[in-house]
Amino acid sequence: MSLRPRPDMRQFVIIGHDAPTTPEFSLDDLAGAAGRLDVLCRCVSSAFFLSHDIREDVRVHLVLGEEYTITIDGSTVRRLNPDERSTAALLRKALEEREEAIGHIPVETSPGISLTRRGFEPTIEDAAGDGTVVQLHEDGDPIVDAEPPADPVFVLSDHRDFTDAERKIIADTVDRRVSLGPKPLHANHAITVAHNYLDTDGYETY
Amino acid sequence: MSLRPRPDMRQFVIIGHDAPTTPEFSLDDLAGAAGRLDVLCRCVSSAFFLSHDIREDVRVHLVLGEEYTITIDGSTVRRLNPDERSTAALLRKALEEREEAIGHIPVETSPGISLTRRGFEPTIEDAAGDGTVVQLHEDGDPIVDAEPPADPVFVLSDHRDFTDAERKIIADTVDRRVSLGPKPLHANHAITVAHNYLDTDGYETY
Repeated sequence: MSLRPRPDMRQFVIIGHDAPTTPEFSLDDLAGAAGRLDVLCRCVSSAFFLSHDIREDVRVHLVLGEEYTITIDGSTVRRLNPDERSTAALLRKALEEREEAIGHIPVETSPGISLTRRGFEPTIEDAAGDGTVVQLHEDGDPIVDAEPPADPVFVLSDHRDFTDAERKIIADTVDRRVSLGPKPLHANHAITVAHNYLDTDGYETY
Repeated sequence: MSLRPRPDMRQFVIIGHDAPTTPEFSLDDLAGAAGRLDVLCRCVSSAFFLSHDIREDVRVHLVLGEEYTITIDGSTVRRLNPDERSTAALLRKALEEREEAIGHIPVETSPGISLTRRGFEPTIEDAAGDGTVVQLHEDGDPIVDAEPPADPVFVLSDHRDFTDAERKIIADTVDRRVSLGPKPLHANHAITVAHNYLDTDGYETY
């Protein structure tokens, strides 16, 4: 599975600060002992699901702590369902094969899902490619007035704020800052709003 | 707990066609044996959560089959978390007290959550009050061009389409039909987009 960005993709890079990096967690306590993996599962669901369809032009990169990134590709992913538990099971399966992930070479752990041994900085750099890195930020340009970015790569955090080190990396890579509105949103809701904005832009007749 | 609508509320009436009407379901299989209760839990999360805050001006009515409705009020609800499993536990607790629900008198089963013995038609009629009943529909007015409704009451379905009987009730009560965009969305994503539209409307400076 190549992780090179395709044209006309929407990508989402989401940092899971407390997310597990080993598969020893219970699917019965995602919001507790599994380091708020529930947050990342909801982000995956928001990124990929339409009613009765999957967004094939989407790729999600979940940065787990400082060492691993799980990438999900909408064009090839299989067995993805919108509920948190089944998504967490796919992520756990990816972590079960973490010993196979050497350097930055991705290991496909189930169809359309791959694991690489790399943290936030190489993940965002690889995802960026020729695209537009977009930070969602309350002080950014209002999305309703903003020109839609080409090949956007949205950078988001889980339930925690970005760390100072992450802010520095973002400052060095970000092309645009966009605000989704006056109220601060959970990451999964921000993904839904960003999708809707891109879906409706230029669509005169809907 | 009064179920009379307050001014300046946003309400969401969501029909759970296969949802359980007894508490004998497992929290480990919400998307399977629990009649897609995962869908309704995601709707609740989308309706109430902001980052580090709860939308107090929101009320959600979950219509479970033909006999019960669970109402959640943002101004009084406690112990609500954004993950599916903990929300399902609150809904199961409500169903455990279903013997107490007689006629249309609500039983408060935990703070801000009440159960009534009534189906879709009385629920939508009571919720409507002086508000504007809005059906989200692909052939409706594009939301970006539409005047925001006062005291909106959005009517949504779970993973299934509305039945013919439900369509008839909706046709008799709906005031507005609004389209959220060219792509059909899951109910929880539709709630997020509707909120964002109402949040951003008229907010010049964000």
